[in-house]
Amino acid sequence: MTNVSIIGTGNMGNAIGAIAAAGGHSVEHIGRDAQAIAGDIVVLAVPFPAVDDIVATHGAALAGKIVVDITNPLDFSTFDSLVVPADGSAAQVIAEKLPQSTVLKAFNTNFAATLASKTVGDAPTVVQIAGDDDAAKTLLADIVRAGGLGVVDAGALKRARELEAIGFLQLTLAASEKISWTGGYSLSA
Amino acid sequence: MTNVSIIGTGNMGNAIGAIAAAGGHSVEHIGRDAQAIAGDIVVLAVPFPAVDDIVATHGAALAGKIVVDITNPLDFSTFDSLVVPADGSAAQVIAEKLPQSTVLKAFNTNFAATLASKTVGDAPTVVQIAGDDDAAKTLLADIVRAGGLGVVDAGALKRARELEAIGFLQLTLAASEKISWTGGYSLSA
Repeated sequence: MTNVSIIGTGNMGNAIGAIAAAGGHSVEHIGRDAQAIAGDIVVLAVPFPAVDDIVATHGAALAGKIVVDITNPLDFSTFDSLVVPADGSAAQVIAEKLPQSTVLKAFNTNFAATLASKTVGDAPTVVQIAGDDDAAKTLLADIVRAGGLGVVDAGALKRARELEAIGFLQLTLAASEKISWTGGYSLSA
Repeated sequence: MTNVSIIGTGNMGNAIGAIAAAGGHSVEHIGRDAQAIAGDIVVLAVPFPAVDDIVATHGAALAGKIVVDITNPLDFSTFDSLVVPADGSAAQVIAEKLPQSTVLKAFNTNFAATLASKTVGDAPTVVQIAGDDDAAKTLLADIVRAGGLGVVDAGALKRARELEAIGFLQLTLAASEKISWTGGYSLSA
């Protein structure tokens, strides 16, 4: 059993917590201003602009832990670009801010409804995970699979750039009603 | 009926030609050094490094036509980055080289086998099209649908950056045997 802490109380945090709990793991949902963090895996289920405050408040407490970045760092004023470097990613920005943590990118290509239903249209929901630490990726992948979802290892943390491009495009398609919030990208092996 | 010219004789060019022909359209497959191009729509079904020669040879003949870029501009020596600007795309590079053509991005997120089989795993194959000319996108979308595949309008040509990120990640996943060449991303409405 792994202790999983979820920071953020929105749809995504709730859906990810439910997946971990379904697999028998210990899950705590904590507020952004919590004093202690029990989890060995900490999911930052907050919008990208909220990350800086979390790093400032909890940076020391996150040392030695696996930190899962699920953000899509859109410029929500335009829906036309990202607010991170074009050749980088939010995950890489966060990894630089948390050098003593092991940062993974995951869940940003999954709408919350597809995590809960375990389906994207008629296809099974697959969580893509990127990161530079294979053991950390395996630990998270095992939790996701135990919760009933598929997993694909998307490669090194550098591939978060591409995962965030997928998340970005998917959000623009849903916001413009070309797809629904229960649809989106799925990934077949 | 629309006249479609396919430049390039590989798996992708053959699959796209078959889709257009299945819908009753006139299809010509032409070599890179052909003298004339009959199509109103011209598909550049060649690797990205071959585009410059085609522009040099056929640039004038492509004026006034719809040019479909299907490339994934990977650095194939590393499989770790693209050879176009990180905030741009091959499609935008090609559009700058062909200012008198209407450039669309399409098919780069579809493996050839999934165009032929019309399925990605168990999901229907969907072709994503990006471009700045709605009439051109509609013309291509109608051809693809008539050939039996789904279509999603991915937005402006600027979104080719994200489509090429998808194509890039999908190629790395297949090359590393995390998915097969008959799998990959599908898109559910």
